[in-house]
Formats: sequence, C-alpha cells, structure tokens
Amino acid sequence: MIVVLKKNISGRQLEALRKKLNAKSVDGAPVLLREGEKILLSEKDVRLADEISGWPGVERVLTEQPPYSLASRASHPSDTVVPVGKVNIGGGRFVMIAGPCAVESEEQIRRIARKVADAGADILRAGAFKPRTSPYSFQGLGAEGLRMLVEAGRDCGLPVVSEITEISCLELFRDVDMIQVGARNMQNFELLKELGRCGKPILLKRSPASTLTELLLAAEYILSGGNGKVVLCERGIRTFETECRNTFDVTAIPLLKEMSHLPVLADPSHATGRAALVRPVALSAAVSGADGLMIEVHDAPEWAESDGAQALTPTEFGALKTAVGGVLPFAVDKEAEA
Amino acid sequence: MIVVLKKNISGRQLEALRKKLNAKSVDGAPVLLREGEKILLSEKDVRLADEISGWPGVERVLTEQPPYSLASRASHPSDTVVPVGKVNIGGGRFVMIAGPCAVESEEQIRRIARKVADAGADILRAGAFKPRTSPYSFQGLGAEGLRMLVEAGRDCGLPVVSEITEISCLELFRDVDMIQVGARNMQNFELLKELGRCGKPILLKRSPASTLTELLLAAEYILSGGNGKVVLCERGIRTFETECRNTFDVTAIPLLKEMSHLPVLADPSHATGRAALVRPVALSAAVSGADGLMIEVHDAPEWAESDGAQALTPTEFGALKTAVGGVLPFAVDKEAEA
Amino acid sequence: MIVVLKKNISGRQLEALRKKLNAKSVDGAPVLLREGEKILLSEKDVRLADEISGWPGVERVLTEQPPYSLASRASHPSDTVVPVGKVNIGGGRFVMIAGPCAVESEEQIRRIARKVADAGADILRAGAFKPRTSPYSFQGLGAEGLRMLVEAGRDCGLPVVSEITEISCLELFRDVDMIQVGARNMQNFELLKELGRCGKPILLKRSPASTLTELLLAAEYILSGGNGKVVLCERGIRTFETECRNTFDVTAIPLLKEMSHLPVLADPSHATGRAALVRPVALSAAVSGADGLMIEVHDAPEWAESDGAQALTPTEFGALKTAVGGVLPFAVDKEAEA
Amino acid sequence: MIVVLKKNISGRQLEALRKKLNAKSVDGAPVLLREGEKILLSEKDVRLADEISGWPGVERVLTEQPPYSLASRASHPSDTVVPVGKVNIGGGRFVMIAGPCAVESEEQIRRIARKVADAGADILRAGAFKPRTSPYSFQGLGAEGLRMLVEAGRDCGLPVVSEITEISCLELFRDVDMIQVGARNMQNFELLKELGRCGKPILLKRSPASTLTELLLAAEYILSGGNGKVVLCERGIRTFETECRNTFDVTAIPLLKEMSHLPVLADPSHATGRAALVRPVALSAAVSGADGLMIEVHDAPEWAESDGAQALTPTEFGALKTAVGGVLPFAVDKEAEA
Repeated sequence: MIVVLKKNISGRQLEALRKKLNAKSVDGAPVLLREGEKILLSEKDVRLADEISGWPGVERVLTEQPPYSLASRASHPSDTVVPVGKVNIGGGRFVMIAGPCAVESEEQIRRIARKVADAGADILRAGAFKPRTSPYSFQGLGAEGLRMLVEAGRDCGLPVVSEITEISCLELFRDVDMIQVGARNMQNFELLKELGRCGKPILLKRSPASTLTELLLAAEYILSGGNGKVVLCERGIRTFETECRNTFDVTAIPLLKEMSHLPVLADPSHATGRAALVRPVALSAAVSGADGLMIEVHDAPEWAESDGAQALTPTEFGALKTAVGGVLPFAVDKEAEA
Repeated sequence: MIVVLKKNISGRQLEALRKKLNAKSVDGAPVLLREGEKILLSEKDVRLADEISGWPGVERVLTEQPPYSLASRASHPSDTVVPVGKVNIGGGRFVMIAGPCAVESEEQIRRIARKVADAGADILRAGAFKPRTSPYSFQGLGAEGLRMLVEAGRDCGLPVVSEITEISCLELFRDVDMIQVGARNMQNFELLKELGRCGKPILLKRSPASTLTELLLAAEYILSGGNGKVVLCERGIRTFETECRNTFDVTAIPLLKEMSHLPVLADPSHATGRAALVRPVALSAAVSGADGLMIEVHDAPEWAESDGAQALTPTEFGALKTAVGGVLPFAVDKEAEA
Repeated sequence: MIVVLKKNISGRQLEALRKKLNAKSVDGAPVLLREGEKILLSEKDVRLADEISGWPGVERVLTEQPPYSLASRASHPSDTVVPVGKVNIGGGRFVMIAGPCAVESEEQIRRIARKVADAGADILRAGAFKPRTSPYSFQGLGAEGLRMLVEAGRDCGLPVVSEITEISCLELFRDVDMIQVGARNMQNFELLKELGRCGKPILLKRSPASTLTELLLAAEYILSGGNGKVVLCERGIRTFETECRNTFDVTAIPLLKEMSHLPVLADPSHATGRAALVRPVALSAAVSGADGLMIEVHDAPEWAESDGAQALTPTEFGALKTAVGGVLPFAVDKEAEA
Repeated sequence: MIVVLKKNISGRQLEALRKKLNAKSVDGAPVLLREGEKILLSEKDVRLADEISGWPGVERVLTEQPPYSLASRASHPSDTVVPVGKVNIGGGRFVMIAGPCAVESEEQIRRIARKVADAGADILRAGAFKPRTSPYSFQGLGAEGLRMLVEAGRDCGLPVVSEITEISCLELFRDVDMIQVGARNMQNFELLKELGRCGKPILLKRSPASTLTELLLAAEYILSGGNGKVVLCERGIRTFETECRNTFDVTAIPLLKEMSHLPVLADPSHATGRAALVRPVALSAAVSGADGLMIEVHDAPEWAESDGAQALTPTEFGALKTAVGGVLPFAVDKEAEA
C-alpha cells in the first residue's frame, strides 16, 4: 500500500503523518520511499486506506487490495452462495423474488402469494414497514403486515423477504427468512452493525447515490460483524435524466461480480417505476450475469396502495420468467468478466 | 390541484382512479375537467399529490402548493426562529457553530471548546457517534464522548450540537441542546418520526443525493410529528465532479429561503473536505442569505482522529468570522429573493 | 397546450405574455382559462413550448405532444427504416457495425475490415477525424484516413460510417455511406443544420450529459432540415459512478423506441471503455429492443493508437454476434413497450 | 510520472507497453520500477498521460504535473492578465461584463448598451449566433446582429464579446474584441484549434457536464495553438437537482485559480436561469475569488426574444455592482487558496 504525499507537505505534517502511521500500522513501521514523496505500508494496513487518504499532506492512497477486504473477490475467489430457506442465491442458479410492494391485507398477500408461486417465483417479497418520501403516504401495516407475509409464505411454501427500517423492529423479523436493507438505509451503519450480529441472510440494496465501492463497504459492515450471508442488489442510481425514476446501472452487475464474491440481484421495478420498462431491464440484468431478480407483482395494480404503476401482473411475471429462461444460456460467463 | 391523466388511460384505470380519489379526498369529490384528460382536486388534498402521481394512468400532478405543507413558506410567510439554549437561529442574526469533527478526549474537547468560544463561536459542535463509510475508520467515543461535549459546552458557556445515528441513543442526548441528523440519515424516516416527538431543536442536513423538495419532505416528517424546531443545512451534493469531495450547492440557500420558512445553515467543511476551500465557500453561503455556518475547527488538524484535512485552526476561524461580518451587510435581502 | 402561469405574475407580465402569444401563435389567439392561472394554446404551437417556458411569469408549459414534433412517435407511429448502402437500419433486422476506433494505416484498416466482414459485421466503422480530450492525443489521419476507410469498405463489400467533427470537412465524406455525429457534437447546432441539408444517413450519438428529450431535439434539427435518415445511438451518460468510463443507460433504449420512430443503436465500447464489459452491455441493449450495435474491434488491441482497452478481437466479436442471435428472439416487443 | 500496471497484465501486454513507451517518450526510455508493477517515465512525458491511461494493462497513470501543462499554475505561477480592448481581465481588478442575451434590433442593443455603460459595465455582451436546444427557438440575427453589437459597443466606448458557433463565421468576428466559446462547444476541438491560431482573447465557458480538468484541457487546445489569451468561465453544471436550471459550482472558482493561472469569470444568469437568483450567486462568485462576472441585462425582460426570465434590469445591475464592490475586500486571497 502506497501513501502518495502532497508536493507541498510540510515537515511538521510529514512528522505527524509518520507518528500516526507508526501508531496504527498493524504490520511494522512505514517506509518512506523517497524523501517527501511516497510512504510504503504493508497491504495488511489496507483497512486504514480510507482514513489515511483524509490526512493532511496526503495526495492519495494506492492500494493493491480494495478497502472492503472481506467483500472483495480477491479475499474469496469463489462465488458465495447464500441459502434463504430452501432456496440458494448465487453459484449458478437464477432466483426470482416476487410479490407486491406492500402487504395491504391478509387476503391480498395470501392471494398474490399463491399466484406468484404458481407463476414460478422462488421467494415471496412484500413490505410491512414502508419508508416513504412523504409523511403523508401509506406507511405500511407494520408488525401485523409482517405476520401476514410470513403466514402467506408458509401457506404457499415460499421463503419470504421484507424490509427493515429500524433496529428495534429486528425481533419482529424472527420468522422472516431474509431481511432487506432498503436503498435509503444502505449507510445506516448502526443498523448494518446490528444485522452483522444476527444470523439471517441480508438483501442489501444499493443507494441511488452510492458508488459500488460504497456499497461494498456497507456490505463490509455486515460481514465484519460476523454475518457472511449478504446479497447485493442494484436498483438504479440518481442521475440528471428524468425520463424515468432512476437510471438502472446495468454495468454495475458485471463490475460487482468482478469486485466481489457476493451474489448480485437486480430490482427493475424500483429502478424504472414503470411496468412497461420492467421486462427489458430485467432481461438486461439476466444477460449481464445477475444471480436473480426482484420483481413487484400485483394482481390489481390499479388498486395497489403503493407503486402500482411499476407492478407486473402475475401473467406478465410468468411471461418474464419464461423469457429469462431463454436468454440465460447466453449470459456472460465469469471468465469473460475476469 | 390538477391530476393530468395519460393519453392512453384505460376506462378501467380511470374508473379505479376516481374510486380511489373519492375514497381519499379530504375535501369533496374530484371533478373530471375533460373526458380522459384532467381531474380537479381541492388544494386541501395536496398531501396526496406524491401518492397519486404514482397511480396508473396518471401523467403528473400539478399542485399550487408544494407537498411539504408545514415546511412551506406559503403556509408560514414569516421566518421561523429556532432557539438553541440562549442562541436564536434564524430571523436575522447570523450564527457560527464550531468545533472538532469528533470528540477525541476530555482534554481535547475542553481545550478546543475554549478556543472556539474565544474566537466568537455561538454554538459548540462535535461528534460522539460517527457514521463512517468504512467499518475500519474511527467510530467515535459514544456516550462518553457525548458527556465530555456537554461538560465542555457548559464550562465555556456554549450550547452544544451533536449527531444522532440511532433512535435508541436518544435518551443519551438529554443534555445536548440541539440534535443533528446527518446527511446519511436524512431519509431515516423512523428516526425522523421519533425526533418529531421530542421537543429538541433538530439540525437536519441535506443528503448529498437529495433534491430540495426531498429535504423539505424530510423536515415535514419532524414538523408533522409536532416538533417545529427544525434547522436545515446545505453540505454539498454528489455530482460527476471529483476535484473536491462534494459540490457545494450555493443556490440551494436562496431557493430554500424562498420555498420554506425554516432557517438554513451551510457546512463548508464537509462540502469541500479541504481547509483551503472552507473560507470561500463559507463567505458564499453568507452572501447568499444563509442564517449561519457550521465550521470544523481543530487546534491540531494533523492529529485529528477524523477529517483533519478540512478543519480550520481557531485563528483561521476567527479570521473567517471577521470576514463574514464584513460581507453580511451586502447579503441578499428577503425581498430580492421573493 | 397549456401555459401554467406563476401565482405572483404581474399584470404587466400577463399583458406582455398575451401580446407575445398573439404574435407568435400559428393557430389563432390564446385563451386565458382562468384569470391569472392558465393559458390555453393550440397544439399546433407546440414548437413554441421550449421558448415560452422561459418567459417571465410562466411556471411551466404542459404539452400533449413533445417539442420534437418530427422525431416523435406520435407524429409517425410506424418505425422508420434508414438505408445505409445495401443495409437497412430499423424495422426489425438487427445490425452490427464494427471496426477499429481509428484508421491507423492503409494496411491496418484493410486487414481489420476483412476480419470483421468475415465475422459477420454489416457495416464498417473507423475514425479519421478523432475528437480527443487532450490536444496531445492521437488526432487521426484525416482526409487520407477517410479515403483508406472507403476503399477498405469497398474491398470487403461493407458500407462505411465515420465521424465528422467540422462542417468544412463535409465534402470529404462524399463516398462515406453514413456520417456519425459524435457525443461531443450532439449540440453543435450549425453542424446539425448542415447535415439536415445533406441527403446522407446520420448516426447521432447521445451526449453523455444530455437527456433523451435533448437528443430528440438534436435529431429534430436534422429532420427539420429535410433529412429524415437519422439513427440514434446510446453510448453511456456521465454520473457520479467512476468505476467505469460512463454509465450505460439501458433504459434509454425502450424509452427512445416509445418516444420516437427513429432506429436506436447502442455503443457498449465507448460506454464502458473496457473490453470485458462490452459483451454484457451489448446483450443488454439487444434484449432491450435496440436495432443494432456499434462495436470497436481491433486485431491487436495492445497496438491500437487509441482506445485499445475497449476493443474486442475479431474472434470475440464473432462470439458476441452468435450470442446476440441467441437472445434476440426474447427481446421486448413493441407492444410491450407501448 | 508513474504508470501503475494492472495486477493481471500479460507478458505480451507488458512487452507492447514498453515498445510503445520507448517509441513515444520524449525523454529517454521508461524504467520498470518493480517487475509487473510500475513504470517510471520522465515528467516531460506528462502530455502522454491521458493516452497511456487508456492502454491495455494500465491501471492508472500518476503524474506530478497535470495533463494540461500550459494551462497549469505549476507551469506559470503568476496570474495571467488578458487584455480586452482597454480592459484587463485577471491580475486583481474585477470586471463586469453585461448586456442582453441576444441582439434583437439596432435600437435594442444601442439602448441597452448605453444603459449598462452608465450602470458601470466594463464590457458589452450580446449574442448574434444563438445555439438553442430547439430548432424552433429564436436563432439570433447572425452577421447583422454582430455588426449592430460592434457599433453599439463603439458608440458607448465598451469592448464587446459575442459567441461563435462555427469556424466559418470567424472572419465575421473581425471587429469583435473577445470571442466566446459557449458551453456546448467547449469540446468542439476543431473550433478550439482554429481559435488557437487567431490572436483574439477567448472566453471559454465550462460545459455543464465537464470536469475542471476537461475544461483546462479544452483551454490547452487554444494555448497549445499559440493563443495565450484565454479566460475561463463557470456557468453551472448539470446535476440531479431540478429546482433551478443548473447547479452553480462555486467551489470551481478557487479550485480553478489553484489549478491554473488563467482568469476565471462566473455567469450567474445562465447558471440559475432566474433573475432573483443572479445576485446571490454573483456575490458568491465575487467572494470566492472570481476575476469578474458576466451578467445578462435587459431593460424589458418581458419582451426579450430569449432568456428574459434570467435578465436583470439596468437598475438591478447597478445595485449588484455596488454590492460586489462592498464584498470584494473580503474575497479570499491567493495565499489562502494555496
């Protein structure tokens, strides 16, 4: 690891820098490569890179390994497989997660669960705690909704995933098979630390404003807490283009597969916000090497309490699953990415 | 409020739409302006705008009032003044908040508190719970740090502000005069709801990826909970430019003053990440109508545990305060903005 | 078309507004819907929308038709087919454009042209005039390069496309089958006007910073000049993500097919800047409804004068063509988009 | 200059790399620092950095000097002063450029020229060739408009600046004192090369999508052509925020002053698109170390053919000039930036 120093670094800054490095280096003292130019550190100190780069007199830090050591492909060359109930995510099989944006009633989630199961979904999704931009929008059914989701999943034999928005709710997720961290909480570090201590699989969605490195550093919070069951999810980033809700970053999929060993899903429903765009974006993710899709499905979109405009009908979802099956054989192979 | 319908809206969608509007409108039934074209709703339904715009068949929703009714200037034409201890934020006086990025030790915060007080700070700032991108960076001293900050403030007679990262910590902030919600938690809605129930002044920082409307909707969560003591803070947004950490959005200041009655501060330290850029950006905020500044100050930046590169020395802070005093008389007046 | 007025519009502004509208409206006088609120204009005036929205007192302009009337799907429901030599772009067949970034020598372009033709390319591409960010980078062989390209194309029986960077070079493109407008010239309006007067097919690339509406308005410059042979090309937009050169906007493809009748290609090579990412992004474009691909191919990438890092070998290009053939049957159909 | 190689660089790539470096290095052969890791090049080769960074096997290129050698502060420590007629831009004095967006008529430009001269403008601005997003918007009076501007300037004793959009128009600018390159043409490299050969002062505006490095590389095109009279101008960048037209990047001003020796102006009118925001943004630029402002002024904004909404009245312009005079003494000094 090389610390490139500013041309105009002062003797005082350099001295302070070396003192701090001596104190923090986990692997022997730093070596000053050339007077006032570069400092060589052990790669074992890579975890300090982020911090050091902010120190006075430091131009930039060059590391051979990325700062997210546990999440990096380098630290773990083979693909990680995350088991969710009877379903495995990663390692070759393509997983379809489907369900309504939100649990609206016992009857609604039961009915839709059955339909997505029949249409070939592997995992059931639905929100009980809804983070909404406006305090006046539907906020979800909470604990009750979570219970309805779990029972609906049990009835149709599908594991379930739902979003957590607050640490104190964690115990309510006892019977939920996979816990989703929404885009807005991707950098809610206290929540990530807590999830690092719980044994459940975590579906970590990329914030619309975070780089891939930041996403992997968020995953690192969970991994370094001892929970290795992390699945990443691309769901569109915020750009200047306003024609649809977000810009789906399809390239993020092969990049994440190259940077990390964690499984990568895509959520075309939130990325686009429009049902008509879900299919092309979903197929794009499939041919780009994604390990699965998360699709919003509602049997009466017009009546959905939230995000109805982006939901597929069970029939459309079935047709999508068939199309995915058709394109998967041509999906980019790991070698091609390397 | 006008709901503009999609050209190709189906009869079924239109029927569903009218049913839902009838059910939700707080002020009488909706009126269909022209067959399959526009629906007129009472302005009292403005809180539904966000939700309705997502419904099938809806092109866009035109409102004469913004969706953040409580935070809007329209709802409250005069400037709001938020008292923090003996200090008032908003309504004419310019406030300087200063202190280190983080509490590092009893001695450090005591020493710096004294120096910023002597240099003319109105409020003392320092972090005890630090949200850091990497799990391997310094995370703060926690509860102990908070205690040290409160005592340091008391000793030098300054009210204190510190960042909260998790609801369960709320009671620890008992003696803190103002609670800061960091950029990463701006859309941590459960936290915002909780702060809406506590009586303390809240410093709400704009997320680097949020629009001004989203910032005001986040403020609306706190206001609608019954807590009217909200102060906004611009701290730079994320753009394609990488020359410095964030792009300080100076125009956000006059825009926020026009859109809302809440006080607006600026944080040049986090926006730029470089001490040399703090002064020009701080003066820009002052001449643009900001109600105050939040400046990171450290008496030994080289030794700062975090963000040393962006900290001013107490002397530089004093010089900045003098310069601010010089430019304020020329700051844009409310009329000019309107 | 509806002109929504500002709440605080002055009588003077309203008067001026009506005078100007009376003067400019191509279809009868404007009608004031409600005092100080909205003005109704004939849809025939849609071309004024952009201009009017900038006028004082105007909040926004609502049009049922977009400002790019000639490029819009509404004005021309069926897909446009653009003939380039013996090849048709649009209307169902999928086109592969391939070749090196730049013509480097008579021998190089001849050799690569033969190889891409054998690998199944439909059109040959190569730059003779290279717009480069740095004045110290290779600028291309100019007129001589153009001649070499034309001859290489003739020899292997492929029509050729090359980029124009300056009006005065237009006559040099006499024997070039299709003229490319690069991303940096997408809003070089004088050039667009000139190309509107020449009869040749134009390949118009989206600027990394332009919205889809701006791209279609740029196309409108060419179409309104009398040249209907315009092909659009998505090549990645500029965002905050720096992991690869640009963010390929895959959703732009179905959106453009919905907004316009013009054919849409994708350029994964420039979007990603990395050979390993070309295949996944290319397949994404194919399943999203693109009418073809533009791929950089070089038989010795290490020796390429420019952009070698993003070039596929002829063998890799052949494999890509096969994969594209495999996924195309599952590509989204026009109905699904509508 | 250090070329950092990819970990997985192949022997073939490394060989090719060394061959190319040997061929291109202007200062002796490259030195391979550590097998398969880094190559050391003379700083004299800095102009190759941009190109080399694109070569296969190259991770990144580290240069002690930036790629824009002529524009860099390092190459020319003292501020450059650009004379425009009798007015000097840069080197301490603050310059006010003012005038209407476009020349609309002989009478209009004459009248407004007189008013801005009386209000204290140093240079007169107005467009004759208008690059407009829509082909249906007012395109300017062309050559005739240019003549009217020149005469109006002569009559009131002010040098004039106007925008060029096409090389072939260059001769028409014979009597224009300063030629403006608009944001959309910032990377119209053929135009930049031509302007590098003409002796006139150039006002180079930053593209809303370009980094500061790209802006300085565009300036490098003009400087390397032999024309040292380049003035830079910040006019807002494109971001996700839609509350006003562009996001004015105030930090760009101190950054550009640090990176380069060229004068830096700001254009608050185009950045914001709203008259009410021009004053705060203009004052921000002044306190941030800008060398001057470019302000749109119209005496009847309601009647302006283009961009009336962003124009100040001559009276407002006069008031702004006074305010600028008040804040300038507190503007950041060169030392503070260094």
